[in-house]
Amino acid sequence: MKAEIIAVGTELLLGQILNTNAQYLSVQLSQLGIDVFFQTVVGDNAMRLEETVRTALQRAEVVILTGGLGPTKDDLTKETVAKILDIPLKLHQESLDRIKGYFEKMCRPMSSNNEKQAMLPEGCIVLPNDVGTAPGCIVEKDKNIVILLPGPPNEMQLMFKQHVYPYLRSRSPFIIYSKVLRVFGTGEASLAEELMDIFENQTNPPVTPYAKQGEVTLRITAKAENEEEAKKLIEPLEQEIRKRLGKRIYGIDEESLEQVVARLLMEQKKTLATAESCTGGLLAQKITSIPGISQCFNTGVITYSNESKVKLLGVLQETLDKFGAVSHQTALEMAEGIRNRYKADIGIAITGIAGPGGGTSKKPVGLVYIGMAVPDKSWYQELHLSGTRERIRNLSTMYALDMIRLYLLEQ
Amino acid sequence: MKAEIIAVGTELLLGQILNTNAQYLSVQLSQLGIDVFFQTVVGDNAMRLEETVRTALQRAEVVILTGGLGPTKDDLTKETVAKILDIPLKLHQESLDRIKGYFEKMCRPMSSNNEKQAMLPEGCIVLPNDVGTAPGCIVEKDKNIVILLPGPPNEMQLMFKQHVYPYLRSRSPFIIYSKVLRVFGTGEASLAEELMDIFENQTNPPVTPYAKQGEVTLRITAKAENEEEAKKLIEPLEQEIRKRLGKRIYGIDEESLEQVVARLLMEQKKTLATAESCTGGLLAQKITSIPGISQCFNTGVITYSNESKVKLLGVLQETLDKFGAVSHQTALEMAEGIRNRYKADIGIAITGIAGPGGGTSKKPVGLVYIGMAVPDKSWYQELHLSGTRERIRNLSTMYALDMIRLYLLEQ
Repeated sequence: MKAEIIAVGTELLLGQILNTNAQYLSVQLSQLGIDVFFQTVVGDNAMRLEETVRTALQRAEVVILTGGLGPTKDDLTKETVAKILDIPLKLHQESLDRIKGYFEKMCRPMSSNNEKQAMLPEGCIVLPNDVGTAPGCIVEKDKNIVILLPGPPNEMQLMFKQHVYPYLRSRSPFIIYSKVLRVFGTGEASLAEELMDIFENQTNPPVTPYAKQGEVTLRITAKAENEEEAKKLIEPLEQEIRKRLGKRIYGIDEESLEQVVARLLMEQKKTLATAESCTGGLLAQKITSIPGISQCFNTGVITYSNESKVKLLGVLQETLDKFGAVSHQTALEMAEGIRNRYKADIGIAITGIAGPGGGTSKKPVGLVYIGMAVPDKSWYQELHLSGTRERIRNLSTMYALDMIRLYLLEQ
Repeated sequence: MKAEIIAVGTELLLGQILNTNAQYLSVQLSQLGIDVFFQTVVGDNAMRLEETVRTALQRAEVVILTGGLGPTKDDLTKETVAKILDIPLKLHQESLDRIKGYFEKMCRPMSSNNEKQAMLPEGCIVLPNDVGTAPGCIVEKDKNIVILLPGPPNEMQLMFKQHVYPYLRSRSPFIIYSKVLRVFGTGEASLAEELMDIFENQTNPPVTPYAKQGEVTLRITAKAENEEEAKKLIEPLEQEIRKRLGKRIYGIDEESLEQVVARLLMEQKKTLATAESCTGGLLAQKITSIPGISQCFNTGVITYSNESKVKLLGVLQETLDKFGAVSHQTALEMAEGIRNRYKADIGIAITGIAGPGGGTSKKPVGLVYIGMAVPDKSWYQELHLSGTRERIRNLSTMYALDMIRLYLLEQ
């Protein structure tokens, strides 16, 4: 099966936003074994949109459009597709009720413009939008399947996952199934050496590495009739890689470091408290992004100033004077302080220089200490990071999460 | 002048990489006053690439291709363009010398494949590559200008900046200059009604709205001979919109809510302390993402449990028992507690139910209270949000930031 992806929106042609929707859909379609030969971006212009859709319908069975389902008269996707397929738009009462409900829940008046969003091609499969106003739809006509999805990535992705994926899956003779192993703390080049023979022997299933901030993912991809068979192909290769990399593999697929740490904490019924300086709450924010974490996380503090380190964590003024706020001594006292004062099993602390200012020759931007305290001991890690403030803050929290993970794995 | 952007590469169609090149080029071309009506992505396939280029040459004067200039036989861009334009490829000795020099500098042997990269369309303008091996080129033929650029974003961007921008600027009679006004707390549809006459009267400069999580941006775009003239065109329209929307406009261009709040805090030399429950540090993290904020932000706490709300903030156990942790009473005591205990000018607190679990019929997921305390008073805001845990947490912090902003504006 062949598909084309069309993103509609002048803001894309002006470069105001990045077309992440095309990437998301391409990944999904590739996993469904559906070939994508073209991605196109076209503006909010009826004539050019029509030309683009007509061309796509000739080249591909499945045409997926994102964007242009909004309430304004610039939003033309449904109107244009309905015209091309010669299907009238009809008010879909259920969608209108949902849109009204959405505004009621938000305590905002619904504009009469929004009614336009409930006009859908007659006979289509309506795709309800759980996080926004615009419903999507699937229209089947002759040999073509046209799928209309909203432009905002969160709305589009949820709708695809809930409704479009199962729809397309049922029409696809084979699948591409992949499993991703996530590695933290080892560079791509070192991994390439450790796994060279595996990378070079690229049959079914091949392994492809991908490096991003602080981590490398290894994707094992199998083509098979169904998931079970694909898993059988992947299994032995995964075992071999796991044998070589051990604990450096922290998770699989979409799992994040914070998800793994939250899972381990919940499984082991351990509590965690955080004390942050340069990361300013980023570590706590990541941990609390995981639903259900409240049983393991009670307290976090952001002690930006020396005063608050003393007051909230009991760091000794003497330690701050002698070694400075960015030192392993302070990191350890912060970790011990947050653990003891707020009665947690694990206390973790981050102090460092995130930049762009504030660095000196002795303590440059990127110097970060992570302190960790558990019932019977405490220890620290010294990091020398580079890059932007954002990167330094983010990597610092990843190293902190990994320290917690490695400790919990040993329990 | 009209342009089209074609990105070449099967990895884009598989979603393995994001097409940031199209966005970069769109922004640049739009600033040059060159209209982009289509962006296309096509794979490493001679037939489909040819079809795409032929279509583009009919629709646009300028066709820019990125990618497919590499040393492998999958790289077909030059070969395909040369065939379509009927211009032979010829060895460009200077480029070959540069490629050889590049490998010498890297202390790596040059593969004979790389020689292919020095084959360029006869008579083209050669664009040297200072950070990679593939030279780019500009080919002028009849009414068309075809520009070939390498795929890696750092190589492409440098080459564009150094060579292509000046080339196109000299051929472009005007520029496009735009200013973005950022609005928080009003939906796109309501804004469309308030500004209907402005939106409908789309002459030079037109105003285009764009909605994303919690905010709407209004882009005013002027076409003029130079920047100064463009600014003159934008000014009266901006004033009119500002008159209508007032303080709801929180910033311009790329400014974020946290940047505005940080700027106001620094200007007014006021200190802020944060107390977060459901947002788990996200508010503090956003504020501390701004360099230099340490003069205005000393302390934040994340009080996830009732116990920590009592211990760290002095919330009364009675209040928690009577009204619950998610109540305006608790939000106010949290805000007052963080402000008084940690000696800040402004105390802000967030407590709510971020979901997906934890909601009840009386207190559903998405119910969030924001408390704010300043020297002489305290007040709160009740929010009814919907969507994912991530969205609820994010919107909650945006509303909190906006409360701080509105207060600071009145000082």
